[in-house]
Amino acid sequence: MKKLKRSARLVEMTQYLLSRPHTLISLTAFADRYQSAKSSISEDLAIIKEVFEGEGIGELHTLAGAAGGVRFIPMCRKDQALDRIGGICRQLEQPDRLLAGGYLYMTDLLGQPALLQEVGLMFATAFAGRDIDAIMTVETKGIPLAHATSLYLNVPVVIVRRDHKVTEGSVVSINYVSGSNKRIQTMSLARRALREQSRVLIIDDFMKAGGTIQGMVDLLHEFRAVVAGVGVFVESGEVDNEERLLHDYISLARLTEVDLKSRHITVQPGNFFKEERT
Amino acid sequence: MKKLKRSARLVEMTQYLLSRPHTLISLTAFADRYQSAKSSISEDLAIIKEVFEGEGIGELHTLAGAAGGVRFIPMCRKDQALDRIGGICRQLEQPDRLLAGGYLYMTDLLGQPALLQEVGLMFATAFAGRDIDAIMTVETKGIPLAHATSLYLNVPVVIVRRDHKVTEGSVVSINYVSGSNKRIQTMSLARRALREQSRVLIIDDFMKAGGTIQGMVDLLHEFRAVVAGVGVFVESGEVDNEERLLHDYISLARLTEVDLKSRHITVQPGNFFKEERT
Repeated sequence: MKKLKRSARLVEMTQYLLSRPHTLISLTAFADRYQSAKSSISEDLAIIKEVFEGEGIGELHTLAGAAGGVRFIPMCRKDQALDRIGGICRQLEQPDRLLAGGYLYMTDLLGQPALLQEVGLMFATAFAGRDIDAIMTVETKGIPLAHATSLYLNVPVVIVRRDHKVTEGSVVSINYVSGSNKRIQTMSLARRALREQSRVLIIDDFMKAGGTIQGMVDLLHEFRAVVAGVGVFVESGEVDNEERLLHDYISLARLTEVDLKSRHITVQPGNFFKEERT
Repeated sequence: MKKLKRSARLVEMTQYLLSRPHTLISLTAFADRYQSAKSSISEDLAIIKEVFEGEGIGELHTLAGAAGGVRFIPMCRKDQALDRIGGICRQLEQPDRLLAGGYLYMTDLLGQPALLQEVGLMFATAFAGRDIDAIMTVETKGIPLAHATSLYLNVPVVIVRRDHKVTEGSVVSINYVSGSNKRIQTMSLARRALREQSRVLIIDDFMKAGGTIQGMVDLLHEFRAVVAGVGVFVESGEVDNEERLLHDYISLARLTEVDLKSRHITVQPGNFFKEERT
């Protein structure tokens, strides 16, 4: 790269850091890349840090010393996130989203890139401190959420299939009972999709009793992998605590009331926004 | 937003533009946001433009006049893209990717956020000049590619299902013949997923004869929607031109040779990299 003026270097460094979250970049690498003194690079990083932290883009963690460097951790600000989840809850409450069986139509929302980026950043913020090797989800609607989160955590996504496809090679399958309709179903994952001992974050779009997520937890055991966290976009509040198979999870929104007759839906911010978590 | 110094403003403007591709932002909006004169904003944009265009991040299109503003169009540089697709082709050529039936295992690659961003940017570059309202793909492996592209084109993704799920509401289903195994299959899309007259970019992971993509084209006709383009990650070169159902598409890689006995695979850059397209 040709030598840049400070103003151009700030632009380049900003995009360079934004596209490499959770990655340690040494001051030496930056100094070489921009043919600049480490002291100048450090000054640039201080400016970027102040903007990123002030505007709710993320944190810049700097490591001092010979092996020193900088790591960009995408983090939203809770007040901004709460404001945005409020808007999402209002969208989820639209009466025409009610489908047969008390399900909510939300496929349209899960197709919008701006919303997915916001939600992905909320999950990445919730799990920023965990040690995570991969994100797991089950097809189909969890996939966009898992990938949106993976962009900010910079780890790969593995997708559990509801049937066994020929293009996956040898697979591990398990049966699970979906909590909402009590039917036995099958899910499978390619043997080579996950290394043993991986620390895995489970992401899904909707959770009632948690049967599907419990299935993924069981599948992880088959791979000798570890659950590093569970994040759901919308949880149903219509489940008793006894019925719930899973208690340690983060939800971004909570469906608290569905009245099929009046088509009235109430959606509130999830446990991510509870006081004790801030 | 509090008033920032020029250096901090450049950092903030860079991230602001990067997160809003294909969106017209007026100079007035920037001037208000940063409490700065339009002349200063214009100088900042000139610096950002030079870095973005020099480094292969994208183009900044400026519109002059009272309604003037700026639009960030993510675009990769062809030489950088060719270099990266070369690396991806080498990964696809690994002998242990060969599966029964001459299929290639590539689910692992389609889970890597950095690779998906590169490939998404290539598709966004290929189709930057088209007028696109939505991106369509069919579950499951096309989904990450469609979403990666949608981030750069800033349009929603609609996902065609291979079966009819209860949570989608009323759906339109069609039968199609998969070119590779000649079986009749069904695909469906929720009635409310796509507006009539939408201009739709179709994205998929793999194309042999093109039966699946032709199915999506037929489905679009049912919605009175228009095909704005077709992009495939890997096309099979083992198909005669007569056999191919589809001729107007962009491929990023081309599987030119599969020798099941010696397990030798050859993958080359796709038609996106052909001279006449540059």
